[in-house]
Amino acid sequence: MMRIAWLFTLFILNSAKPIKDSESCGYESCNKVDPSKINVHLVPHSHDDVGWLKTVDQYYYGAKNYIQPAGVQHIIGSVVQALQKDSTRRFIQVETAFFWQWWQDQPEKTKEMTRQLVNRGRLEIVNAAWSMNDEAAAHYHSIIDQFTWGLKRINDTLGKCGRPKIGWQIDPFGHSKEMASIFSQIGYEGVFFARLDYRDSKKRHLNKDLELIWQGSSDLGNFSNIFTGVLYDFYTAPAYFCWDILCGDRPIIDNEKSFDYNVNTVVHEFADYVTKGIEYYKTNNLLITMGGDFTYQAAEMYFTNMDKLIAGFKKYRPDINVLYSTPSCYLKAVNEEGRIKNIKFQLKTDDFFPYASGIHSYWTGYFTSRPNSKRFERQGNNLLQVMKQTTSFAKYGHNLNFENNLIPLKEVMGIMQHHDAITGTEKQHVAQDYVRLLTAAVNTAEEDVDSIILNILKKTDNADDAKIKFSSCLMANVSHCEKSNLDRFTVVVYNPLSRYVNHYVRLPVNGNSYTIVGPDGNVNYEILPTIADFSYVDSITPSKKELVFVAENLPPLGLKYFYIQMSKSTRKKHKIVKQTRFGNNNSGFTIDKVTGLLSSVTLNGVTIELSQNFMFYNGANGETFRASGAYIFRPANTTPTAASFAKTITYTTYATDIVDEVHQIFNNWIRQIIRVYKNENYIEFDWLVGPIALINDLGVEVVTRFVTKRLSNGVFYTDSNGKQMVKRIRNFREMYTYTNEEPISGNYYPITSCILLKDGGSDNCSQGDNLEIAVLNDRAQGGSSLEDGQMELMIHRRLLNDDNFGVGEPLNEIEFNEGVVVRGQHYLTFGRKNTCSKSSVKSAAANQRDIAQRKLLSPWVFVGDATSNQHSLQNLQAKLNFQFSGLATALPNNNTNDKATILLRLEHIFSKDEDNVLSQPATLNIGNLFPLFNIINIEEMSLAAHMPKIEIEKMTWNSFIPATPSREVRSTDLNIDLEPMEIRTFIVEVVPKTRNFV
Amino acid sequence: MMRIAWLFTLFILNSAKPIKDSESCGYESCNKVDPSKINVHLVPHSHDDVGWLKTVDQYYYGAKNYIQPAGVQHIIGSVVQALQKDSTRRFIQVETAFFWQWWQDQPEKTKEMTRQLVNRGRLEIVNAAWSMNDEAAAHYHSIIDQFTWGLKRINDTLGKCGRPKIGWQIDPFGHSKEMASIFSQIGYEGVFFARLDYRDSKKRHLNKDLELIWQGSSDLGNFSNIFTGVLYDFYTAPAYFCWDILCGDRPIIDNEKSFDYNVNTVVHEFADYVTKGIEYYKTNNLLITMGGDFTYQAAEMYFTNMDKLIAGFKKYRPDINVLYSTPSCYLKAVNEEGRIKNIKFQLKTDDFFPYASGIHSYWTGYFTSRPNSKRFERQGNNLLQVMKQTTSFAKYGHNLNFENNLIPLKEVMGIMQHHDAITGTEKQHVAQDYVRLLTAAVNTAEEDVDSIILNILKKTDNADDAKIKFSSCLMANVSHCEKSNLDRFTVVVYNPLSRYVNHYVRLPVNGNSYTIVGPDGNVNYEILPTIADFSYVDSITPSKKELVFVAENLPPLGLKYFYIQMSKSTRKKHKIVKQTRFGNNNSGFTIDKVTGLLSSVTLNGVTIELSQNFMFYNGANGETFRASGAYIFRPANTTPTAASFAKTITYTTYATDIVDEVHQIFNNWIRQIIRVYKNENYIEFDWLVGPIALINDLGVEVVTRFVTKRLSNGVFYTDSNGKQMVKRIRNFREMYTYTNEEPISGNYYPITSCILLKDGGSDNCSQGDNLEIAVLNDRAQGGSSLEDGQMELMIHRRLLNDDNFGVGEPLNEIEFNEGVVVRGQHYLTFGRKNTCSKSSVKSAAANQRDIAQRKLLSPWVFVGDATSNQHSLQNLQAKLNFQFSGLATALPNNNTNDKATILLRLEHIFSKDEDNVLSQPATLNIGNLFPLFNIINIEEMSLAAHMPKIEIEKMTWNSFIPATPSREVRSTDLNIDLEPMEIRTFIVEVVPKTRNFV
Repeated sequence: MMRIAWLFTLFILNSAKPIKDSESCGYESCNKVDPSKINVHLVPHSHDDVGWLKTVDQYYYGAKNYIQPAGVQHIIGSVVQALQKDSTRRFIQVETAFFWQWWQDQPEKTKEMTRQLVNRGRLEIVNAAWSMNDEAAAHYHSIIDQFTWGLKRINDTLGKCGRPKIGWQIDPFGHSKEMASIFSQIGYEGVFFARLDYRDSKKRHLNKDLELIWQGSSDLGNFSNIFTGVLYDFYTAPAYFCWDILCGDRPIIDNEKSFDYNVNTVVHEFADYVTKGIEYYKTNNLLITMGGDFTYQAAEMYFTNMDKLIAGFKKYRPDINVLYSTPSCYLKAVNEEGRIKNIKFQLKTDDFFPYASGIHSYWTGYFTSRPNSKRFERQGNNLLQVMKQTTSFAKYGHNLNFENNLIPLKEVMGIMQHHDAITGTEKQHVAQDYVRLLTAAVNTAEEDVDSIILNILKKTDNADDAKIKFSSCLMANVSHCEKSNLDRFTVVVYNPLSRYVNHYVRLPVNGNSYTIVGPDGNVNYEILPTIADFSYVDSITPSKKELVFVAENLPPLGLKYFYIQMSKSTRKKHKIVKQTRFGNNNSGFTIDKVTGLLSSVTLNGVTIELSQNFMFYNGANGETFRASGAYIFRPANTTPTAASFAKTITYTTYATDIVDEVHQIFNNWIRQIIRVYKNENYIEFDWLVGPIALINDLGVEVVTRFVTKRLSNGVFYTDSNGKQMVKRIRNFREMYTYTNEEPISGNYYPITSCILLKDGGSDNCSQGDNLEIAVLNDRAQGGSSLEDGQMELMIHRRLLNDDNFGVGEPLNEIEFNEGVVVRGQHYLTFGRKNTCSKSSVKSAAANQRDIAQRKLLSPWVFVGDATSNQHSLQNLQAKLNFQFSGLATALPNNNTNDKATILLRLEHIFSKDEDNVLSQPATLNIGNLFPLFNIINIEEMSLAAHMPKIEIEKMTWNSFIPATPSREVRSTDLNIDLEPMEIRTFIVEVVPKTRNFV
Repeated sequence: MMRIAWLFTLFILNSAKPIKDSESCGYESCNKVDPSKINVHLVPHSHDDVGWLKTVDQYYYGAKNYIQPAGVQHIIGSVVQALQKDSTRRFIQVETAFFWQWWQDQPEKTKEMTRQLVNRGRLEIVNAAWSMNDEAAAHYHSIIDQFTWGLKRINDTLGKCGRPKIGWQIDPFGHSKEMASIFSQIGYEGVFFARLDYRDSKKRHLNKDLELIWQGSSDLGNFSNIFTGVLYDFYTAPAYFCWDILCGDRPIIDNEKSFDYNVNTVVHEFADYVTKGIEYYKTNNLLITMGGDFTYQAAEMYFTNMDKLIAGFKKYRPDINVLYSTPSCYLKAVNEEGRIKNIKFQLKTDDFFPYASGIHSYWTGYFTSRPNSKRFERQGNNLLQVMKQTTSFAKYGHNLNFENNLIPLKEVMGIMQHHDAITGTEKQHVAQDYVRLLTAAVNTAEEDVDSIILNILKKTDNADDAKIKFSSCLMANVSHCEKSNLDRFTVVVYNPLSRYVNHYVRLPVNGNSYTIVGPDGNVNYEILPTIADFSYVDSITPSKKELVFVAENLPPLGLKYFYIQMSKSTRKKHKIVKQTRFGNNNSGFTIDKVTGLLSSVTLNGVTIELSQNFMFYNGANGETFRASGAYIFRPANTTPTAASFAKTITYTTYATDIVDEVHQIFNNWIRQIIRVYKNENYIEFDWLVGPIALINDLGVEVVTRFVTKRLSNGVFYTDSNGKQMVKRIRNFREMYTYTNEEPISGNYYPITSCILLKDGGSDNCSQGDNLEIAVLNDRAQGGSSLEDGQMELMIHRRLLNDDNFGVGEPLNEIEFNEGVVVRGQHYLTFGRKNTCSKSSVKSAAANQRDIAQRKLLSPWVFVGDATSNQHSLQNLQAKLNFQFSGLATALPNNNTNDKATILLRLEHIFSKDEDNVLSQPATLNIGNLFPLFNIINIEEMSLAAHMPKIEIEKMTWNSFIPATPSREVRSTDLNIDLEPMEIRTFIVEVVPKTRNFV
């Protein structure tokens, strides 16, 4: 059972100060609608990017206003003041990263005032995640984490009345099914957004389908449904009705004696806008966003004019009821009118990707933009999950309170999900700031790893001299790790998965010969050359070699400890071989002797023809229509150029006991290692791209393309935020008529973790070999299958033109005075379609899910300096266990009697029918799962853990699906059952088990 | 006695709602200074022009923000909100025009909140006049009026704690003695400003004389003293420390975890600014203005950063005490330190004119800019005084409540005093708006003149058919008055002076023969041609002739009524004569037969050589240094060009029984009538200038120059706001070394009402003929005496370049597609210096003061349509008295028993020693002055009537004059004594006298 139920969150909750709740928040606090009239819901809001043209802190404080006049502290501050003035005024607060920063700065009086506003429904919290996350490049782990973290801060400060009901994804550039599903699982009632394909938008306007019921997951069914509203006219205020200090639109002049009196004019023009808009919706309610990017720094200004607008309508157009409202009040009004009039809303089961804002403007470039940032974010997540677990163990084992060390990382990971962060659509200096923030947060998170490891592993209380300073080798990708170049060092490999895994440790070294001692004795290793010479990287001296060994059978939520000494006796040398077959009969590949390119792949004993190559598009420079830029992918030509002009690429081959590698050089700026580990069922493509050479002053967008002869029938599959797979059909959209003006970028989709092909394009058997072939990645990328049997992923972009969507810079990342270099990995795997396998045969899906997990939550390698005398192998072996499992080993316990609260999240990672066995519902008894503590109470929570699941109430909607009841809250005994794809979140009260030295 | 004590204000006060006063306002509410440290007084303020680049309403509402992002409603609104947040925060509110508009818009809750802030000293009212008036072109009548009106609104809304202590003239372009005197008389403790001559400023910085005691009036002596502070560094925030939404300076980032933390840097830079500044002052207090033009629309932003600055100083520079303060709190601190340390401040008795901001930037152009606006403002004042009086009579006679009709005019007159209104330094569209506002206010003020006149004059209650609609002929200056062109019309001539005067009525007519019947029977008249053909003026049909008659012996505060019928019988024709002598032996002039120019003048029996001509300077275009513009007068050449190129100008001469006139044509765009009325002791110059012809694309600045052979010894005299006369010496300044880079404009001074020369340049006798020669004007102008015996006044300007001080437009007024035409009058008079006259001989000053009064508060002519049958002479004579005096005649009274409160202001209009008799102290018994009511109570008030004089408390200062006590409040019995130049203001409670039909 442990195989499928994958515990990925386990963390101590600091209990919140109880907040006095008022009963007047919620729908009863809404300003009244009048069913006999058109009801215009003015929704005052400010869209505050958590970094974009300016850094997070610059936006918060209002620094560098010459770039953009924006200071979020003033927005929240002035809104809270303006809301005091009139009890009918409303505002919605969205980004908790900013709200929390502001909250901490406030005196108690202001906090109390703010709570009152929330308790009276005048300040409504919506979305409430740390940032408004991207939906293409963000992984669902991180999305859920950042909602959990944001909502926890809201809970702690504002209490029940702060609980949001609404998803507010107004700016992200396309919308995913998984996001819809997450919103529903958190308990939200609806989600609103502004951006969707221009053809889709037009059709929805015409057909009154701007509001719909979206089923986010076919596995979860109606439980993942969410009301979805497309805003009438983007998320800004109507043209000429922005009364913000940033806008300069004409104010309302209501002094009848004034020469410039204009209430009548303004009201009639606004009424025109309303009567045009109401035609696009099925009810008599119209939501009008009054705000925009960083509006409301001088909130009173905006409100003063809206007050006058509302008064003006009462005077000149009493047939239209204009009121201050919020998305939840609007939704409530729509629901009520819908129920009374039996209005049926469209059902949608696909997603809103890709987003084209116009005929030549496909927002598919950002799927890949800034690949290094996208990778660093994944590493941050990986480390965060590792540290959450180890910190918990350290606490429960030893009362070590290091959880505050993780706060910066949690915050930064929330920031990184922002739709101008992980997307790569920010200015260069902002991207650098994200890196700086994440680096600093990683350092803080690691600060006390030495103590944690010591306390987890120590055999006696008297083990302080076995304490070693550990850190991650974040620059191993450029062959630099200071500690692994020492004569003696230790390595901790921590496995955050709840099952045993092997991990191939790779460390930059300069030595030729080593002794490695692990918990099970001496360990075999290999030394291989690095992919390239990284000596161009400033301020490091990179190693030229990599030490490779397997950390085998890493225990679940556990670690192994290795002691590594350079040895002068033996000289271990990598073997250069002359061969074209690599690996073994189970897992291997061949290369074409002439071209040097991949020619076939063998996995699970099955061999298929498969080639891989790098090529690049030239980005359109925007002389006609739109340029390729940070957001937009628009190739100047539909056929990409091969990366290597030569017929034969240069390559070197290595065969060892652990791994076989082919090192390929495609051109001056593209290299790759194709690698197969002896005991793995995937092929690894370890590529290095950059500095991209610009040719003829045109932008370059590099793809890796995998070519097979499979007949995929125009169909391919891409993941949704790393969770469910979504079917894509080339040159086709499910809900509107696709036009093929941009045949390349129009077929690009976000590949957050996986792209795959199926023989015949479907699950039908008797199609080719009934194979599924998947490519997994180590960060989000854009990708497609532009021809049958092909898959391509865009891996790097260097562009010379801005695409004119606001960032104001071409995406031309420079580092060390050159275009930036990117290194990354793809993992190729395939297997039989589950529908065509016998139940005993492992499905393709089983492989993919397995690999994806092991890459996303990879075992984490900490390296420590063991050169001091006290850190001899003997002493460390005497003082420390070289192995630990959070799920299997009881830890020393310092007799604390503290009751504590932890968050436990369990997930079924398979979709229905993906695997005959693994897709079955599962049950896990958690009673005996944790050696550290006994569970004394358990309560099921929303997906974001911010409220008991039993308290989630949802409105009912009339749509085109058979109405099934929401899944009932199930009993919360210690046997937790999970349906396919389900994630269940619990708050568990625990007490430590009694001390029990091993 | 009535001759010298000149009652000029008499108006009903609407009593204010009593306001609960708190005892915590005033100095005790100041944040504490620390005598052991440098005390930095941060004074948050917003400088809100009552019109400049935008109109008053545009500024208030924030309309047309593309011109300038400014909305005053948001400034006051957001400040009031921000002041709530922290009890140490302070703000000063200056312009009552805006405050009152805002106040009326607020809900009671906000008003109450605002009162609380005022009561706690957190919002301090300073200046508090309706606008921040100009000090060069504004007349002291209007200045006092606008302070009275502004302070009344403050009193009514905010009560005692709203009483200002501080004059805040931070932006006006030079500073007058009379303004200093007015501030002192209103009871203010000090005045602050920013603009003064650059050499003066430098010297004061070096000598620590930026703070001084200014004696505003030698007549009033120490009673007119006021502490005067020149701000350290203009009125804006220090460079890089403006935290307004308009500024974009770096905010303080005080999160120590932030990469951008900068508290230490900001504090140290600010401290540098402080330690540099404190060197310029004598105490350890430094006032730093935190604000600027239209700052604080998002007040919280500014305050948030100042909060952090203050906190930062506590942390990094505890030796400097930075506090929120106000000018009054600063002043109090300076005074206390001054008293303890016995610090002596400089004494100053001259003024701060002209203002040169740099070597080529003399702000002397605005003394003349937009001459038509400057004249219209004077007319507005004239009408306002007339209507205040007549409205009072109508109320007391008949319970007619028309006083609210005057509110717009009072408000607009306050607006017109603004330092970008009467100065002519606003944008063209704003100037048009001022005219529109003033026109509308005049129309409202006149709305019920028919009822007022009927009720004042009616002999019986049954006189309604004698009611005639009256209005002013505001376009008589272009020979247009609809009603005076009717066959039958009536004329009311109201005299607002408290003595009998004659008035020469001039009305545009088309007829040739008229019958005029006044209260004393038939009236003689003349018909003369107009100065020019005004048919180019749009939408009117101008008359070609003017009817002239004398309204003789107009009673004080009284009127005469004339019935005028066109007659067909006689044909009255003006007499064209061929002569060079005009007038009579007492008053007359001669012209040079060859040139056509004036050659001599006879007044009071004395004849002197005197010529007059028009000439013009070309304005510098700014290619080097500064252009001549709305603010700046900078001629390209020092010798002006004569207006007429010909040796002989064209002229026509007319001699009549009433008036002799010479009509001169100087060139295509300059004409003039020189005129002498038979019974007047002045020569009138009635000129018409424009459209100015531009030559060689250069600006043109037209002057009229009077040339005599008097030896004036480099000395001339100009008035200060129409009150006291100030001695000027060519190429010299009293308190700093003058450098003569701009010999013309550097010697220009504001001529608000009068410029004069004295034989020998002083009051010493035995100099020439011991004459004083004065030119009075009908509006403010710039003027000088550039050579001995000469006086010149600039009368019109047309410029093609902006002078780069913000207005952003060249001063090129266009009307009817041409440069604008200006018409105006000068009055030349002379007489013996008083010091050299026998006591029985009328002094020159006696003449000047007499003429000035009769021109400023001229008898006002209303014209009514009498064409309907019921308005026959017989009927009107039967129903109406044709004469009324508010001081001499008892009016019908409708038995009202209402007690009422009126404001009474009495003024001694002569300076010490100006006239042997008239300069003596005077006493007036007011007990029997008013036939309408009995005085039952009297209380002396501040000059602005906003507080009892007895409540005025003033700090004492150590300066270089013998300390004399403040003038005591004198007994307030009905005998009011007046010292020279003194103005005394009383609130008088009255009850109506019993009914008494005449």
